Amino acid sequence: MQDHSIHATKNAANFVPLSPISFLNRAAAVHGPRPAVVYGDVRYDWKTLSERIRAVAGALQARGIGKGDTVSVIAPNIPELYELHYAVPMIGAVLNTINIRLEAETIAYIFGHADTKLVIADSAFNSLVHAAFDIAGETLPMVSIRDPQGPDASIAGESDYDALLEGPAFTGTGLPDDEWQTLALNYTSGTSGRPKGVLYHHRGAALMAMGTVNAWDVPHFISYVSIVPMFHCNGWCHPWMLPLVGAKAVFTRDPVPERIFRAIEAENATHMGAAPIILQMLAESPNGPKAPFDPPIRVLTAGAPPPPAILEKTGAMGLDVMQVYGLTETFGHISQCLWQENWESLTASEQAELQAQQGVAFPMVEDVAVFDRATGQPVPMDGRTQGEIAIRGNTVMKGYYKDDAASAEAFADGWFWSGDAAVVHDNGYVQIRDRLKDVIISGGENISSVEVEAVLYRHPDVQAAAVVAQPDPKWGEVPCAYVELREGASPDADGIISFCRSHLAGFKTPKSVVFVELPKTATGKIKKFELRQQARQQG
Amino acid sequence: MQDHSIHATKNAANFVPLSPISFLNRAAAVHGPRPAVVYGDVRYDWKTLSERIRAVAGALQARGIGKGDTVSVIAPNIPELYELHYAVPMIGAVLNTINIRLEAETIAYIFGHADTKLVIADSAFNSLVHAAFDIAGETLPMVSIRDPQGPDASIAGESDYDALLEGPAFTGTGLPDDEWQTLALNYTSGTSGRPKGVLYHHRGAALMAMGTVNAWDVPHFISYVSIVPMFHCNGWCHPWMLPLVGAKAVFTRDPVPERIFRAIEAENATHMGAAPIILQMLAESPNGPKAPFDPPIRVLTAGAPPPPAILEKTGAMGLDVMQVYGLTETFGHISQCLWQENWESLTASEQAELQAQQGVAFPMVEDVAVFDRATGQPVPMDGRTQGEIAIRGNTVMKGYYKDDAASAEAFADGWFWSGDAAVVHDNGYVQIRDRLKDVIISGGENISSVEVEAVLYRHPDVQAAAVVAQPDPKWGEVPCAYVELREGASPDADGIISFCRSHLAGFKTPKSVVFVELPKTATGKIKKFELRQQARQQG
Repeated sequence: MQDHSIHATKNAANFVPLSPISFLNRAAAVHGPRPAVVYGDVRYDWKTLSERIRAVAGALQARGIGKGDTVSVIAPNIPELYELHYAVPMIGAVLNTINIRLEAETIAYIFGHADTKLVIADSAFNSLVHAAFDIAGETLPMVSIRDPQGPDASIAGESDYDALLEGPAFTGTGLPDDEWQTLALNYTSGTSGRPKGVLYHHRGAALMAMGTVNAWDVPHFISYVSIVPMFHCNGWCHPWMLPLVGAKAVFTRDPVPERIFRAIEAENATHMGAAPIILQMLAESPNGPKAPFDPPIRVLTAGAPPPPAILEKTGAMGLDVMQVYGLTETFGHISQCLWQENWESLTASEQAELQAQQGVAFPMVEDVAVFDRATGQPVPMDGRTQGEIAIRGNTVMKGYYKDDAASAEAFADGWFWSGDAAVVHDNGYVQIRDRLKDVIISGGENISSVEVEAVLYRHPDVQAAAVVAQPDPKWGEVPCAYVELREGASPDADGIISFCRSHLAGFKTPKSVVFVELPKTATGKIKKFELRQQARQQG
Repeated sequence: MQDHSIHATKNAANFVPLSPISFLNRAAAVHGPRPAVVYGDVRYDWKTLSERIRAVAGALQARGIGKGDTVSVIAPNIPELYELHYAVPMIGAVLNTINIRLEAETIAYIFGHADTKLVIADSAFNSLVHAAFDIAGETLPMVSIRDPQGPDASIAGESDYDALLEGPAFTGTGLPDDEWQTLALNYTSGTSGRPKGVLYHHRGAALMAMGTVNAWDVPHFISYVSIVPMFHCNGWCHPWMLPLVGAKAVFTRDPVPERIFRAIEAENATHMGAAPIILQMLAESPNGPKAPFDPPIRVLTAGAPPPPAILEKTGAMGLDVMQVYGLTETFGHISQCLWQENWESLTASEQAELQAQQGVAFPMVEDVAVFDRATGQPVPMDGRTQGEIAIRGNTVMKGYYKDDAASAEAFADGWFWSGDAAVVHDNGYVQIRDRLKDVIISGGENISSVEVEAVLYRHPDVQAAAVVAQPDPKWGEVPCAYVELREGASPDADGIISFCRSHLAGFKTPKSVVFVELPKTATGKIKKFELRQQARQQG
């Protein structure tokens, strides 16, 4: 047998490590004079963006940052954070974006665990960073970003980002030695226990970017509103996708509806990503458009299955929403609820139900499967049998930083195990039922807390809802609903329960309803473990 | 310094060899019931296409074909050739598509050089294959494709393709052990000397496919007419791109205008690729559309810079043509003449001039540069200074099969050297002036034969033209034009020369014009070396 492989070897002409840095270099050359960044009155093109990035990269190098060094950044979505998505990996360093809503103690933990060499923070968060330094007992070198559009642009006695722009400019290609090299370190939100450090490599970031162009049908020269926080899975890796299409990125700093609507209108926005909570804010804002956006704005949403009621409203507003699904461990989205033409004839409500599915694998993902973990077999495509979502592909993390035990558990049997319970429909579309630990088992039946919550969100008085298991002597567990009401609303629990009963099987209907302000994590996720604890005490 | 790379290793969950086979597997799962193949009355969907491919792959394996084995295929663009683009690489074997217009002697040479284990041929080419066997002195195992829509569907005493469809079906993933593994072996047209065997790997084919979706803005569910011969750079790797967008591929067997127009209308075609000669045939066909296609059909063209006169005509017909550039050695296209909005206000003729440029790098290509080979420096972006196009990236061949000397020469200094002379415009767009050996040097001035030919193509009596150097005692060389006339036309040489003089500098104007039928290679390229020889004798 003739092995053709031996006759030709890798060389500088035919093998280049995959990296999103290549996309930036190309955009600077190919799309140079096109708008790249818009933030209020600040505007610059791809050539300027590339020059700014290369100046910052060189300045970081001059400060001793090099291959494998962690640079931690605490900032909202502003152009500087976008630039750091290139400037840090360009010199082989590792970008660690930190959620601005975290408390100082967790930030101190992350600085220590991540071996942070340098902190770059928006000046509004300087005191938070210093509180973290105090807890850690160590003050790290720090650079402040003074954002004139932020609440606090004056800070003394610290080095500042504008000084980095003086370079000296980095002049290399910026490509890694090996495409498996780490470019980002992202901490999970850690609903319980310490956050884990998820390692991304250049290969995965590049393929994520190319796959997103394909999955989302992204044409050249889109106008993209940057809403997904870049401290969540690097904004679903969108910062690394934008140069591929010579996109204009529009920043609003804070994801408040008035600013988003203003940005959409002023910059003829075409694309954006946003969590369901943002979509809800947009749908309910008094500042919305007078007529639906036309052509519709293409929107990705993820983070939690969007309640169908919200999808109906955003659809009416001219937001063409596609639900995607993923985890910090998968570089962001790895499945998409691809629209099917035969859904056109359905009612808006039926469409919204289908659009809340997690759908099918992204093109750069090898497999998104749902396994019965007891038997190890894929669940039947019946839309009923629950299993756990498992993922394989080049956009799955390298592993957890300094946590081989957790990595080994996550990667059991050659798959990454998501911890999400789901069913598969007859068309192959995956639909999440719940986080595995959120499933309620009542009289031997599985109840999806997400399904019950979706019904609650349809009630006009409900602002937000979470359903957890409450111990029950007869059924083992029964669903208990925690509900946050809209301002001025005052329904009683019985009214809510009978509303649910008219839409759900009896065993799925909450047996009790508690009106509360829902506890949330720094990433905005509802702390179900706290509610579960409460329910256990009440039960 | 902390090296994050050491903390996490590749495993089956987070590392998958890049391969277009993954795209097929995904399309079978995600786009299963969508139309995949249309050929006259033959229609089948992605699920069926995948099943047919897996049957053929399994049957080939049962015949002893395995990793590294070459399967040579001689067929026009029919569904079976498309299927073999997956069935052969799926079992680790190497697809060697052979130009159906080659003479038996060259085919015999290729069988021997490629170490062909099995030949699969459309039955119309059985006698050609047998003639090649006779020359080689060895009869290889052979499978016939009997195409009822071809000229000869009855062949006796040979195994046939339909028998392969009986399987047993291949059930593995079909991925290579290593993404650097060879999936195709393509022979150059060899305008002089023996053709060289160009090795493609799975990695390059996958990235080419993803990059094409991006560069060409290819949305989901296109209707693609398969015209670019799959024996030229595997049809520019489009067969491996189509599953990424769940495309419908429409086949016409022969690229004749009537069939192409019928396919466009019947299948609502949206995309196609075609050489300039095909565009010319379409533009001049009496069977063209009554009104321009609306929306326009997206067309890629490559192989030679299309004469602007042809682009003007196809534009008027509703063909939205983008010129791309590449070589067999680069998996097909690696640069694109990306449309710029500020061209909108130009005349059709000015637009056509710009659209004939080779443009900027594809997204999956690291660099397309033009070097002065004497100094080793990039040429200035002045639109005048000529240099040689050099390319680096993951869609550059592994090398030439069994020809290390030629590989080493092609890969000098870490670049692949194209042999094409070009300039770079101030916007970074590359424009080919000539094959290096076709440049005419007159009185110390470089004359681009392509530029002079473009003027000749504007003359209403000219069907085709080639300009070569003729020795001249005073100027060293002068341009000599060989012209093929349209039927019924009878201009004289002086008229042609004065037409050229009104559009060109004096030194670029041909000094003599010869009316001939132009000699062409099997791939339709004009044999300039023959014309150069003639001109030398006349000079």
